[in-house]
Amino acid sequence: MFEGKPLKQLFPEERKGWSGYVEWETAPERKRIATEVLKTKKFTPIPEFQFVPLPDTNPILIGHRWKEYHEALGLKHVVDFSWETVQKEKPDLIHLLDFPYNGETRPDQLLEGKITENKYHFIRNHGGVPDIDEDAFFLEIGGLVNRPVKLLMKDLKDPEKFPQSEVTVTLQCSGTRRIEQIVEYPGDGDELINAPWGEGAIGTAVYRGVSLKKVLKRACGGILPGCEHLEFIGADTYFKKGNVFNYAVSVPWRKVRMNEEVLLAWEMNGEPLPKIHGYPLRLVVTGYIGARSCKWVYRINALAEPSMGPVQRQEYLYYTQQIGKQNVKYNNGFSIQNMPVSSAIIKPRTKEIIVHDGKIRLQGWSYSGGGNWVQRVEVSPDGGHIWYAVPEENLTEKHYHAWRLWVIDVPVDAEGWLEFCVRTWDSSNNTEPTFVRSAWNWDLHVTSSCHRIKLYSVNRSRPETAKRLQVLEQHGDSIMNLTKPPEFSLETEEEYLQAYRAHRREPIS
Amino acid sequence: MFEGKPLKQLFPEERKGWSGYVEWETAPERKRIATEVLKTKKFTPIPEFQFVPLPDTNPILIGHRWKEYHEALGLKHVVDFSWETVQKEKPDLIHLLDFPYNGETRPDQLLEGKITENKYHFIRNHGGVPDIDEDAFFLEIGGLVNRPVKLLMKDLKDPEKFPQSEVTVTLQCSGTRRIEQIVEYPGDGDELINAPWGEGAIGTAVYRGVSLKKVLKRACGGILPGCEHLEFIGADTYFKKGNVFNYAVSVPWRKVRMNEEVLLAWEMNGEPLPKIHGYPLRLVVTGYIGARSCKWVYRINALAEPSMGPVQRQEYLYYTQQIGKQNVKYNNGFSIQNMPVSSAIIKPRTKEIIVHDGKIRLQGWSYSGGGNWVQRVEVSPDGGHIWYAVPEENLTEKHYHAWRLWVIDVPVDAEGWLEFCVRTWDSSNNTEPTFVRSAWNWDLHVTSSCHRIKLYSVNRSRPETAKRLQVLEQHGDSIMNLTKPPEFSLETEEEYLQAYRAHRREPIS
Repeated sequence: MFEGKPLKQLFPEERKGWSGYVEWETAPERKRIATEVLKTKKFTPIPEFQFVPLPDTNPILIGHRWKEYHEALGLKHVVDFSWETVQKEKPDLIHLLDFPYNGETRPDQLLEGKITENKYHFIRNHGGVPDIDEDAFFLEIGGLVNRPVKLLMKDLKDPEKFPQSEVTVTLQCSGTRRIEQIVEYPGDGDELINAPWGEGAIGTAVYRGVSLKKVLKRACGGILPGCEHLEFIGADTYFKKGNVFNYAVSVPWRKVRMNEEVLLAWEMNGEPLPKIHGYPLRLVVTGYIGARSCKWVYRINALAEPSMGPVQRQEYLYYTQQIGKQNVKYNNGFSIQNMPVSSAIIKPRTKEIIVHDGKIRLQGWSYSGGGNWVQRVEVSPDGGHIWYAVPEENLTEKHYHAWRLWVIDVPVDAEGWLEFCVRTWDSSNNTEPTFVRSAWNWDLHVTSSCHRIKLYSVNRSRPETAKRLQVLEQHGDSIMNLTKPPEFSLETEEEYLQAYRAHRREPIS
Repeated sequence: MFEGKPLKQLFPEERKGWSGYVEWETAPERKRIATEVLKTKKFTPIPEFQFVPLPDTNPILIGHRWKEYHEALGLKHVVDFSWETVQKEKPDLIHLLDFPYNGETRPDQLLEGKITENKYHFIRNHGGVPDIDEDAFFLEIGGLVNRPVKLLMKDLKDPEKFPQSEVTVTLQCSGTRRIEQIVEYPGDGDELINAPWGEGAIGTAVYRGVSLKKVLKRACGGILPGCEHLEFIGADTYFKKGNVFNYAVSVPWRKVRMNEEVLLAWEMNGEPLPKIHGYPLRLVVTGYIGARSCKWVYRINALAEPSMGPVQRQEYLYYTQQIGKQNVKYNNGFSIQNMPVSSAIIKPRTKEIIVHDGKIRLQGWSYSGGGNWVQRVEVSPDGGHIWYAVPEENLTEKHYHAWRLWVIDVPVDAEGWLEFCVRTWDSSNNTEPTFVRSAWNWDLHVTSSCHRIKLYSVNRSRPETAKRLQVLEQHGDSIMNLTKPPEFSLETEEEYLQAYRAHRREPIS
């Protein structure tokens, strides 16, 4: 059938200036042949990283399998271009997975301010990075609309045609803080690795673009009756169980009707979208999981039902705790759209040793999706019994669709290992589940339980402790070498005997 | 002072047939010189294994520092002989630390029966293994006794002189299950590594020997008034903060007065003591932490106060949770002698995937020290809410000083990740703390909280699950590859659409 034909002919990049884009969704025969081609190859198995510690490397995980999928279809240049783009646009992230690229923001950069700098904003890609020339680019809108259209970037950017908006938006991978779920119990490995995210798969930017609702109205004359979902198709190539797709997701029309909540955006923090963020055009869907904010969107379909694309239909599903490989189906999990209230302590880091004078400073982020804003942040120094509210002046300003960063000095008397946690209350009075297990789920999504860290408290305001710190220093040691036993004797024989004789180890009678 | 003199002359093995033994306790000048010698050397730092995952090696940890201490004093042959002895006497243990040797029993061998075979019994040594000829060996008893004596093995073994006893005794390192405390929070590293024990630092044997009380009475004419502790000195060399000792511990006279509770033993399960277990003579102190059952005991001192040896005075102390490097002293922890009630689930192992038909079989051990016997064992399939008692017929027989092994088939309906735990009640109605944190302590001793494991439950008595297992098998997959996503689609498009249309993902209005 396809033997002898070069891959470039079987799976062509048809559009000039659209490197890395192959059309799959309107090419069923091409899809069929791709499935046949994939069947002829062996691919590296998905790595097991949940039952064992994560490798101490950077990138942490290597996407062998997805690289091989691309190579098998003649798309190795997409793999290479993606990594070049990472090195140019995201050199400083923690590289969780090299391809498709998944990288998270480091703690210092997370806390830098309400707005995350473009080069520090996290990335969760599902495929390679296409390299599309803005002038050659166009967006097609079809399906249940009055008038299918094809729009150039210069049309979309023309304020005469479409009024522009700027919205401050926090985007979050629904896998944020997934590592906590993995440590608790391993879950679905997924073909496209369920990346072991920490607290940095979240970021905030000001996006400029046009409201999708307005584009649908002005360019297409509105939607037709029966349209319930808007499907977004991205130029990246996606794989699922031996089949090939363009990335496709959808959001309800009801969501799109809110003008400022679903944006076609080309600008991020005053700059053109970085290539890795979807240049030249992406969706920004406020309050939803990041996966719906389709990058490199080149087609929008107005549909009667949600997208049948695997990302929408078969992934980002929220299962009960008792669902797993033995009984999971696509219809027994619910679709994750709005993100719930959640938060994280970003500094200090867990297992740090903190020398203080009766107060420990904690800093972090709090966020809620679905248009709920962050109402109150509370921090506990004792695992969740006593809660201190963050003073309002210690929070960044409220937004409908963005996080609030916070800082608090928590009174701490006790020494030794303490458990700190945070919980946030949103404007619908939602707060967070107590423990990871309280909301663990097979696909390891939405880790919104109270974020917990362990800190070793050394209260220097206690005279005996202050003295010990000095003695350690005199011996060239430090409390920071916590597990290293002091080289000096902790008390003299005389002190020991005096204490022993005052309080013998056994009763006398 | 010592320069130029060969080490063999400075630190001689004086007694013929006593290889690996250097006398320190009655040789203060020798101790002083040894301290000077040690000061001239650099030693490998104690390895950091608490803040990072344990290496995946066997032996898991290498005792560089203690090997170097021995070498510095001309005792390298002790290091070599110890490892040769391990390979001969304990080839199949999990080698936690190669020197001083610490090895734990594997799960299969732990459950083999009420009595642990000698070659599988755990070892927690504090120094090298001396190689002592039984015929050359003698035991000296002195201090607050009517008549100091020197006893040959043939005296001790002469039933005309001392009546012999056989006692079934569980010995346990107070570090058993320490790994659970380490994972929770790192603690004192200790110069002699606080080994990261699992559940296998416990074992049971029948020891034959003579009651120490009877030896004191018959050989020494009894103790003198004022004697409160009996100090045991072992032939192994011990190090602490730059000083050198023979291993020394003590137990109260009140304990020794119970004839069958403190034994001078030379036989273990009907065989001569293995060298690594203290050949030719050791103490067996029932109900106490293993550290008091001094191996290679060559001197016993009747004292007015507990031993001033570092193992007794400065180690095996139980601190409050808020004590740590910043405030620890020897007199603010209490001395661990009797072991509390504790237990462990040995099979299945944590994170195993269990395919069953409505019941899961658990097996383990339960023990209590201080002469308390195991009264009842209870197992919970839900983290500690519902408790099933192990039927009496599923427990091995009661002993005053030994564990009971048990087995129970627990009814399990639910699937997915479940939390099992065990608790034991002893004959004083003591039971175990609930969580590791409930009793965490700086020296990481006595992990007696309810032992918890995570099991992935697959209930084959559910028709849908049985069907899925078949489908996995047809695809050459298995539920045992838990994190590997199935390669087949979980439902057809038709099934999905039917389910979707019956229960739409969003409300209609």
